[in-house]
Amino acid sequence: MVLPGRAMATFRLALIQLQVSSVKSDNVTRACGLVREAATQGAKIVSLPECFNSPYGTKYFPEYAEKIPGESTQKLSEVAKECSIYLIGGSIPEKDAGKLYNTCTVFGPDGTLLVKYRKLHLFDIDVPGKITFQESETLSPGDSFSTFDTRCQLLVYPGAFNMTTGPAHWELLQRGRAVDNQLYVATASPARDDQASYVAWGHSTIVSPWGDVLAKAGTEETIVCSDIDLKKLAEIRQQIPIFSQKRSDLYAVEAKKP
Amino acid sequence: MVLPGRAMATFRLALIQLQVSSVKSDNVTRACGLVREAATQGAKIVSLPECFNSPYGTKYFPEYAEKIPGESTQKLSEVAKECSIYLIGGSIPEKDAGKLYNTCTVFGPDGTLLVKYRKLHLFDIDVPGKITFQESETLSPGDSFSTFDTRCQLLVYPGAFNMTTGPAHWELLQRGRAVDNQLYVATASPARDDQASYVAWGHSTIVSPWGDVLAKAGTEETIVCSDIDLKKLAEIRQQIPIFSQKRSDLYAVEAKKP
Repeated sequence: MVLPGRAMATFRLALIQLQVSSVKSDNVTRACGLVREAATQGAKIVSLPECFNSPYGTKYFPEYAEKIPGESTQKLSEVAKECSIYLIGGSIPEKDAGKLYNTCTVFGPDGTLLVKYRKLHLFDIDVPGKITFQESETLSPGDSFSTFDTRCQLLVYPGAFNMTTGPAHWELLQRGRAVDNQLYVATASPARDDQASYVAWGHSTIVSPWGDVLAKAGTEETIVCSDIDLKKLAEIRQQIPIFSQKRSDLYAVEAKKP
Repeated sequence: MVLPGRAMATFRLALIQLQVSSVKSDNVTRACGLVREAATQGAKIVSLPECFNSPYGTKYFPEYAEKIPGESTQKLSEVAKECSIYLIGGSIPEKDAGKLYNTCTVFGPDGTLLVKYRKLHLFDIDVPGKITFQESETLSPGDSFSTFDTRCQLLVYPGAFNMTTGPAHWELLQRGRAVDNQLYVATASPARDDQASYVAWGHSTIVSPWGDVLAKAGTEETIVCSDIDLKKLAEIRQQIPIFSQKRSDLYAVEAKKP
């Protein structure tokens, strides 16, 4: 995503841990209300969780899917402009040319669609007696990156972990990714609904480039806020200079054009 | 490294958390003694820590450095053969053609040198008021990989974290790497010596492919042991099939020939 420039070396990030219901219009309305509330708290970048307008489940995706632009993303564009913020629209089930995708949109402070990202790595899991879920039953993966900036400073991941992977991996992977890349990591999860067919872990989190948890939600619907300090990030990159030590003479990570 | 085949789907791994002194011959003798002890406990793969025959510090490296093969690695070869184990020789300061390296050797059960790896990414850190250390002051980095097996099942990392990065990152990075790659991760640290110029964190650890800590040392000289179950690893890779979901059409990690 497009990060603010030098004038915004410190800014406030907010994550909306939405309680997702089975009524799409309610989900969108409540999401926009919480985005406004986060903006009044000074947030300049706000993220919704994965699958924020639909219950998370392969049986729901065909019914809740919509075109982009469409009714849900139109509302996101409007509220981003109204609040003059960057809005990361979590994700929604998208339908296009007979296929379904798990798609994230990002809107700028003027309401423009900046990014449309279709989830590349679908979530398939089968832990006997614990959880079995196959996004690939109904969804297709995307085919392109929304960005490939190797000096990324803030990674925002709208995600919905579950009661098996949540306690084992949710915070660990965020903290690991933050230290590996010396950047801020933020995750926006739906609030937990114990009655849902897929029970989300919750615990939306913001992690510093040193791997410290700066802010963390419980399981309920809430806004998680933290100031993001890009000067602090620059200091850490100077203290442990892993970027200048990369051995590009010996290996490379390359994006291929599909 | 060469992993045992199907007949050894479960085997025992031991890490030697050596108390490193300023007397090289003592370090090597005590290391070999602990390797024998680990072998009598049934370990089939044993690892020594980073810089096991020399105090860790740029001022020590020139004095303690030796050729490979040389006195220290000759002892490693002998004890590997005597115990009929795979021995990962932590690392030692190596001198070759006027340069110094931080080098790991691996010996097979017949005493053969299987791998010689010179640390590629030297450790430079400067956290004001906490720790300043530059391996690159005296060491040169290596120029080749010892292995590039992308389906690695056990990653053994002889390392010496410190009192700043240890509490923040040591366990986190191991657990993160284990879950990212669904493999066992083991780290062998020197024991802590509060009087040393570089105080090692200790806490040699073995982590499962699910990210659980299976065994963990304190700060003192000790052997850490755990059974490694490659069937369990195969199950986890089946439960969350991240390897088959890689998008090699979209990106690649490539080793370049130097």
